[in-house]
Amino acid sequence: MKKRYIMSPGPVEIPPTVLAAAALPIIHHRTPEYRKAFAEVNEGLKYVFQTKNDILIFPAAGTGGMESAVVNLLSPGDKIIVAAIGQFGERWAKIAEAYGVNVIKIFSEWGEGSDPKKIEEALTANKDVKAVYTTLSETSTGVENDIESIARVVSGTPAVLVVDAVSGMGAIKFKTDDWRVDVVVVGAQKGMMIPPGLAMVALSDKAKALLPASKINKYYFSYDQALKALLKDKLPDTPYTSSVSLVLQLRESIRLIKEEGLENVWARHAKVAAAVRAGIKALGLKAFAKGTPSNAVTSVWTPEGLDGDALNKKIRDDYGITMAGGQGKMKGKMFRVGHLGYTDRFDAVVAVAAVEMALNELGTKIETGKGVKAVIEELLKK
Amino acid sequence: MKKRYIMSPGPVEIPPTVLAAAALPIIHHRTPEYRKAFAEVNEGLKYVFQTKNDILIFPAAGTGGMESAVVNLLSPGDKIIVAAIGQFGERWAKIAEAYGVNVIKIFSEWGEGSDPKKIEEALTANKDVKAVYTTLSETSTGVENDIESIARVVSGTPAVLVVDAVSGMGAIKFKTDDWRVDVVVVGAQKGMMIPPGLAMVALSDKAKALLPASKINKYYFSYDQALKALLKDKLPDTPYTSSVSLVLQLRESIRLIKEEGLENVWARHAKVAAAVRAGIKALGLKAFAKGTPSNAVTSVWTPEGLDGDALNKKIRDDYGITMAGGQGKMKGKMFRVGHLGYTDRFDAVVAVAAVEMALNELGTKIETGKGVKAVIEELLKK
Repeated sequence: MKKRYIMSPGPVEIPPTVLAAAALPIIHHRTPEYRKAFAEVNEGLKYVFQTKNDILIFPAAGTGGMESAVVNLLSPGDKIIVAAIGQFGERWAKIAEAYGVNVIKIFSEWGEGSDPKKIEEALTANKDVKAVYTTLSETSTGVENDIESIARVVSGTPAVLVVDAVSGMGAIKFKTDDWRVDVVVVGAQKGMMIPPGLAMVALSDKAKALLPASKINKYYFSYDQALKALLKDKLPDTPYTSSVSLVLQLRESIRLIKEEGLENVWARHAKVAAAVRAGIKALGLKAFAKGTPSNAVTSVWTPEGLDGDALNKKIRDDYGITMAGGQGKMKGKMFRVGHLGYTDRFDAVVAVAAVEMALNELGTKIETGKGVKAVIEELLKK
Repeated sequence: MKKRYIMSPGPVEIPPTVLAAAALPIIHHRTPEYRKAFAEVNEGLKYVFQTKNDILIFPAAGTGGMESAVVNLLSPGDKIIVAAIGQFGERWAKIAEAYGVNVIKIFSEWGEGSDPKKIEEALTANKDVKAVYTTLSETSTGVENDIESIARVVSGTPAVLVVDAVSGMGAIKFKTDDWRVDVVVVGAQKGMMIPPGLAMVALSDKAKALLPASKINKYYFSYDQALKALLKDKLPDTPYTSSVSLVLQLRESIRLIKEEGLENVWARHAKVAAAVRAGIKALGLKAFAKGTPSNAVTSVWTPEGLDGDALNKKIRDDYGITMAGGQGKMKGKMFRVGHLGYTDRFDAVVAVAAVEMALNELGTKIETGKGVKAVIEELLKK
């Protein structure tokens, strides 16, 4: 008997009542019962996203949501800025280029956040930029971007701001309307605490104004069709079959977020992340993030002489805890601890204890107990 | 306390063990544990589809799977044949036209099946046709298409045959390889008996040979990327986050299909559908299908003078049974009874009993008990 933990930056551990919601008999997506539930989910998402904007829900991975924010807003040959701070930010450029869009790449060194001034300069030098695409919490590097400052820069221009908040929403402070973010793309299996397979997209009026001019062909991810279904009746609907069970699980996870209160959810993630960072630091390990560390995921350099994948493998296969390794060019050089979703203070204790034990067993010299001591002291702070 | 039944042609009632699989803690999609399960699902699907071809799995509604079979195989300006027999068949044309494809429409009158001769004539007259798109079981009309005969016509030409088997696979006899069907698109919430949100696509070598020439832009639904991930290692993988819980539910539903045996599954659907048809006929109601009636769904004209939506509403709201009404131009004129998934003989009894009771309560003169008598007699036949 080995107890299992998911401490990856997605999929995340799912609260018991959210799991249980998936085990109930299915209901039909075109019934008043489902559409009322779907309306409730839509309203709940507005609270989590802190927006009054319409939110579209697609059966898709987060990447599908990202693609939708390219194919609906742009035309081939359009100019955009991609402000990337890692693997997922760089994906914006790949998707846009796949559709013939002209990308100005403001790619930060991995570990850093975006510099709003560079975005401002690029916008000043390129008055024809249609949109700026960036990332809230970069999963591959564990860095949080300063979206509020980026939005301040972009909102004063004709360009729309599109934020991949897949792995931050519901975990990290994010205020769509106050900050004037136009398009927010969110995934299921991160702060929203449900299994993967749902992409959510919030759209401002400024973003909607771009839709008629878009000349990229689309069908499944068409915002026109999705908005028509969303707004046609008193109760929202979808153009194609809705992911019934995932949406009903989302209703339950939103209920949990509401019950705790969004600010408290953010504070909990901040507390757990701070405790893990304190533990890692006390062990003499080096954080990867040079920019603001994300409260969604803590990224750590693997100690010199140790294969990063070996550390992850030991923690996963011997201890039953799924963390994450490095992605892309960081493969084998990093491990990452997720703090998303159904996570609390003792997850910080377990995570750092597992790292201590694995390093010990793998022959890296560390002072045992020093990490978890720092975790506990951080958790005890008011 | 009102017992609930889903008798729609999707989403369908889900077997208890498949529901329970969704309530287990989630696992990470990049772990050996998950990838072994994913490999098992891939192998299992080959049995259900009766194919040796590679099968790609996308987090998406069935329509996303259909879109993928357009954007990967074709280029703008390419010529295709769409042999449609209802709403969903006609969707092939809408998707293709959204991507600038030139569509030869062989649209049958609703209620009829496709005429393979007409497809043959069109192929003879248009040697440059790249693909023929059609439907196995047309949900909007309750008609089964003769895919075996259509495939005999298409397989002798350079064109590939693409079949929307979303609402037939796992319920109706279908032999991908024996019949030489090149691309098969399947959905989750029908014969595969899991909640909606997964699209599966089987690809023959003849279909794969079209991929390099395709000039339609794509990213999320790229077969190149999906095949690369599927085949890169000993265990299959996906380019983006897999729909973990739906895939694990699919593993369980495939296990159930294997346990029962595919031929027995087909026979069970045939038996239940025949019983419902017998009951409907005995009540003096008129079947909508003039072509081969589908064993996935029985479509029935609403009796003269009765609003079809009123009948469905009564059965749903008063009796707790979700059937379906007419779609598109048949709205209000038809009701449809699904026989897909977790369905057995007594569902036929309940379905016809509900129709009898509702017609009685809505003032339509029918001889009470005559329908269910015919159902039972049909079920008793060897």
